[in-house]
Amino acid sequence: MNPTWTAPSVEPAHDVVRAARLQHRLDRKTKPLGALGRLEALALQIGLIQRSEAPQLQAPQLVVFAGDHGIAARGVSAFPSDVTWQMVENFLTGGAAVSVLARQHGIALTVVDAGVRHDFEPREALRLCKISHGTQDASQAPAMSRDQCHAALTAGVEVARSLPGNVLLVGEMGIGNTSSASMLLSRLAGVPLEQCTGRGTGLDDAGLAHKLAVLQQAMRLHDEASDPLDALAAFGGFEIAMMVGAVLQAAHEHRVVLVDGFITGAAVLVAHALAPAVLDYCVFSHRSGEAGHTRLLEHLEVEPLVDLRMRLGEGSGAALVWPLVASSVLLLAEMASFESAGVSDRTATSLSAGQAPSAQRAA
Amino acid sequence: MNPTWTAPSVEPAHDVVRAARLQHRLDRKTKPLGALGRLEALALQIGLIQRSEAPQLQAPQLVVFAGDHGIAARGVSAFPSDVTWQMVENFLTGGAAVSVLARQHGIALTVVDAGVRHDFEPREALRLCKISHGTQDASQAPAMSRDQCHAALTAGVEVARSLPGNVLLVGEMGIGNTSSASMLLSRLAGVPLEQCTGRGTGLDDAGLAHKLAVLQQAMRLHDEASDPLDALAAFGGFEIAMMVGAVLQAAHEHRVVLVDGFITGAAVLVAHALAPAVLDYCVFSHRSGEAGHTRLLEHLEVEPLVDLRMRLGEGSGAALVWPLVASSVLLLAEMASFESAGVSDRTATSLSAGQAPSAQRAA
Repeated sequence: MNPTWTAPSVEPAHDVVRAARLQHRLDRKTKPLGALGRLEALALQIGLIQRSEAPQLQAPQLVVFAGDHGIAARGVSAFPSDVTWQMVENFLTGGAAVSVLARQHGIALTVVDAGVRHDFEPREALRLCKISHGTQDASQAPAMSRDQCHAALTAGVEVARSLPGNVLLVGEMGIGNTSSASMLLSRLAGVPLEQCTGRGTGLDDAGLAHKLAVLQQAMRLHDEASDPLDALAAFGGFEIAMMVGAVLQAAHEHRVVLVDGFITGAAVLVAHALAPAVLDYCVFSHRSGEAGHTRLLEHLEVEPLVDLRMRLGEGSGAALVWPLVASSVLLLAEMASFESAGVSDRTATSLSAGQAPSAQRAA
Repeated sequence: MNPTWTAPSVEPAHDVVRAARLQHRLDRKTKPLGALGRLEALALQIGLIQRSEAPQLQAPQLVVFAGDHGIAARGVSAFPSDVTWQMVENFLTGGAAVSVLARQHGIALTVVDAGVRHDFEPREALRLCKISHGTQDASQAPAMSRDQCHAALTAGVEVARSLPGNVLLVGEMGIGNTSSASMLLSRLAGVPLEQCTGRGTGLDDAGLAHKLAVLQQAMRLHDEASDPLDALAAFGGFEIAMMVGAVLQAAHEHRVVLVDGFITGAAVLVAHALAPAVLDYCVFSHRSGEAGHTRLLEHLEVEPLVDLRMRLGEGSGAALVWPLVASSVLLLAEMASFESAGVSDRTATSLSAGQAPSAQRAA
């Protein structure tokens, strides 16, 4: 058993000179200063990620990592574990939300069996990386062994490395995985478990209280698991561990990482604990309706692009906002400048009280 | 001079039976109940607009209405009026933000000269509907005569009627037009002018104070203009009046109206005062960074889809979120149901404390 796992190295993306050049380019576009709001910051971030003043997004890859959770046997989800494999089939046949969105936007969709409690027939677009048929019940034992955890991390690295393009959209499927995400958030960010725990796929009040009690039991059992990888192994799941590896590798390769919601956010939380610069590469797509997600975003000090009260997972939020990310880069690339379009700029100093517009500079 | 103008009639889109059927269809999709958040409400709204349980979006049309404002001569904008016609050229040659976004999404872009202070050469994609070379200075006289106002409203109706497709994205260009929008909002919604007035294209503190003083003067001059069309004529502009006509006609024809930011919002405010049901047809794309927009949205009791701190106009916010609107309809059309995909549903009653998952129904 290998006691340590070496994460792919992640260099900070920030560069003061390049940022200034990108900002200057944005400022010369035919619009008032800053008028494209967060799209400008996004274009600048992607320029820094790609070490380029003319970034381009190529061949976006959406990967849905799927795995089952032993703790689901404790009744922490409103849906049965079989839904995990059934939804994998649904992703592959094109009927899931994320399938529809990926098709709409021409995003390649790959599904990874990280540890589903079901044996799949091989299919194009399905990667068989199963670590085991679901994790152990984290309320009774570590969800995975240290070896299993390392194997899952490594598989995630390999998946990201094997994909073309320069954008990774990350999603997941796994009945029970809000439980893992809640426990990881509570342990790694020091947030009280009650604030991290939500209704998942739709628990009622009694179901939520039961879930919280089960998670409290699991947290007590793994009281010593404070190191990021110890916590990951203790609380699971395989799909989260693979996402950690994939996100780190994508950042290592200077890809843009488009993060979905709460569960993928928990994977980024672990990745961030291992390599803080990973955040430079992450774009947070949406604020999930799942309770813990806002706490997670606050801990990472990041702001998602949209808040549409979605709470589906699958990468659906990432796929939904992909066109906004693409827009930011296209605006930087294709908008005319004041000079090229012959549009009059404002004067160097703002127009102040009483000045007539004839005092403005005309192009 | 015709003292009245007859607005196109707008029927309410709501229908309890159809809404229930659409909601049922959404609820059977392979996702937890409500997990697509606002996308579900959006798909339902579009179904109601189209009187269909299987709505489809066809041939989206983005129209940018452009006009100049006499009040710009008072120094209420950080940019000179010439920027209006220069930006029209930029829209047509493809270098403006809205040009880039329309191209990205395959949205047809039409520019309407509603009253620009410049004579354009005829071009494909440019409609010459000029009422006059800019409005009068609203701080000295009504921005337009009642006849001009009616002509602009009618031209907007004609533009909408002539376009193919079933979605109208509305945008505008006009140096000085945040002034018109602020005064319309203050007058029609009863909001204090200071809360309606912002920095527009980028005024500094002194410029903002000056703008507010000029608008206060104009509001006092037209103290009697409280009827929606009186206020519209008093405060302008031609592009806003044409948008009012276009929005009403689009709603009359059961088109989806995708509203941009503050200025288009002011046109919807006027349209709503003439035909309240117009809101059933409107999707509010984004919350603008311009100060008055939040007051306007509050007055109409509507929530925009995104808040990216954009404040550009042109229809850029509408074009940006178009793919999200398209997603909502595609998800309704293309997602599998629990039945069709063979995915297990949750039990009829939520899983409660202590129940084992074997109590769940399997498909």
